[in-house]
Amino acid sequence: MPINIVKIGGNVVNDEGKLENFLTAFASLKGDKILVHGGGKIATEIAKKLGVETKMIEGRRITDEPMRDVVMMVYGGLVNKKIVANLQSKNTNALGLTGADGGVILAKKREVHTIDYGFVGDIEKVNAALIETLLSQGITPVFAPLTYSPIDGVLNTNADTQASAIATALGGDKNVSLIYCFEKKGVLSDPSDDHSVIPVLKPDNYEAYKKEGVIYEGMIPKLDNAFDAVNNGVKRVIICEADDLLEAVEKGETGTQILI
Amino acid sequence: MPINIVKIGGNVVNDEGKLENFLTAFASLKGDKILVHGGGKIATEIAKKLGVETKMIEGRRITDEPMRDVVMMVYGGLVNKKIVANLQSKNTNALGLTGADGGVILAKKREVHTIDYGFVGDIEKVNAALIETLLSQGITPVFAPLTYSPIDGVLNTNADTQASAIATALGGDKNVSLIYCFEKKGVLSDPSDDHSVIPVLKPDNYEAYKKEGVIYEGMIPKLDNAFDAVNNGVKRVIICEADDLLEAVEKGETGTQILI
Repeated sequence: MPINIVKIGGNVVNDEGKLENFLTAFASLKGDKILVHGGGKIATEIAKKLGVETKMIEGRRITDEPMRDVVMMVYGGLVNKKIVANLQSKNTNALGLTGADGGVILAKKREVHTIDYGFVGDIEKVNAALIETLLSQGITPVFAPLTYSPIDGVLNTNADTQASAIATALGGDKNVSLIYCFEKKGVLSDPSDDHSVIPVLKPDNYEAYKKEGVIYEGMIPKLDNAFDAVNNGVKRVIICEADDLLEAVEKGETGTQILI
Repeated sequence: MPINIVKIGGNVVNDEGKLENFLTAFASLKGDKILVHGGGKIATEIAKKLGVETKMIEGRRITDEPMRDVVMMVYGGLVNKKIVANLQSKNTNALGLTGADGGVILAKKREVHTIDYGFVGDIEKVNAALIETLLSQGITPVFAPLTYSPIDGVLNTNADTQASAIATALGGDKNVSLIYCFEKKGVLSDPSDDHSVIPVLKPDNYEAYKKEGVIYEGMIPKLDNAFDAVNNGVKRVIICEADDLLEAVEKGETGTQILI
C-alpha cells in the first residue's frame, strides 16, 4: 500500500485561503498519508507581541529559550491544532504530533561551531513503529516541525528535513512518496518565470544548476533533503505547488521530480 | 490491569517546583496511566501580552475566537508539550492529545442560555478504542483541556469533566482509578484548616455539606464530576494533594475518597 508523505511550507500555512485549498486536496488523497507542516511567520508575529526578539542568521531562526516557548506554542499548539481540526472536519482522522510525543522523532541539539542556533535539533531517529501503528488505525499523523532530545528537551527542526527523515524511516520495502508542496510550480530554472519548471533533477544536472547559480540559497537544503530521501529508498520525491498536490500524487506529471 | 487517570490542576501546572515533583511521582506510577492537565493562569498572562482580553463570568473563562487561539497555543502547545517532554525525560512514553487529535474527545459547543461562554465544549463521546490502543503500546496519553466539535472546531473544556469522561469511557469491566490532584490535602470541612480533610464523601454527607455551605463554589462541579465517575463504573475516585499522588494510588489512605 502506498504511503504519501506531504510537506507543506510556511508560506502556504500563513495564507488562510491557500491552506484551505491545500487541506481539501490533502484530505481527498486515498490511502495512508502523513502531513508535515512548516511554521511560518506567525511565530515571528506572536514572538514580537510577547516581547521575544527574533534573531535570524543566514535566514535561520535562532531558538533561544523564550523563542522555544514561542515555537512550542505556535507550531505545536496553534498551527498544528488548527490543521488537525480542519482535517477532522474533512473526515480525515488527523492526529497532531511533535517529536516529543511518543518519542516519535529523537534529535540532538546542534553543536555550536561558529554559530549557536540554540534549541535546534538534528534528527537522529524516527520511531517508525509508532507511525505505522497510527496509520494502521486509519489515523493521519500531522507533524509540527519540533523534535525531542532526552538531554535538551523540545528542539526546533527544519520541516523539510523532518519530512525526509520520516519518509526514509518508513521507506525500505514500502511504496513511499514524498511530496514537498510550496508556493512555486516546482524548481525553476528562472525564478522570475513560473513556467520554467525543471521537470526532472538528477545528481548531474543538480550539480550543474548549482554551479551556474540557477539553484541557490534556500532551495539547496530543500533539494539535499529530497535527494537524501531518494538515496535512502523513498520511491518517489516531487517538489510542486500546493495547488497541484492531487495531480502530483495521482499522475506525477507536475512539479519537479527527483531521481537518482 | 489497573488504569490510573490523574488530573492535575492549573495551580500546580503554574508552579514549576510543584509540577516537577508531581511529574516525578506520576512517572513512577506502575502500569497504564493517563494524565489530564488544566490550563492555569499562564493563558491569561499570554492573552494579556497578545492584547486579547480575558472575560470571566462566575469564575469561568469566556472563550471568544481570539481566546480560543490563545488556549490552543497555551494548553495544546506550551503546557502540553512541556509536560510531555518532561515525562519523556523521566522514561515515561508520553503523547500529548487534544480532543481533536484522532477525534478522541468529541464535544458540542455549549448552548447559549443566559450566558454565551463562546467556544466551550460539553463532552459527547470519548474514543476509548484509540486510548486503549495507545496504552497497549506502552504510551501514556497526556490530555490538554480541549475537545473537538465537527461543527465548531476546537473547544475549551473543563479538565475535571474531561478526566471524569475519560475514566468513565475506559471503566466498565476495567479497574479504573481517577485521582484529582490539586493544591489542598483533600476536600476540607474547614478551608482554613489543612488537617480538616473529609476522608470519605458519599451522596448523603455530600448533600449535607453543601446545605451547610461547607462545600461550595468551585468544589461543587469538581465533586459532581467525581460522583459522575463513580456512578458510571469507575472503581475508585480520590481527591488529594498533588504531593500525595503515590500514597493515594498505592495505599488509598490520603485525601478524600468518593463512594456511593
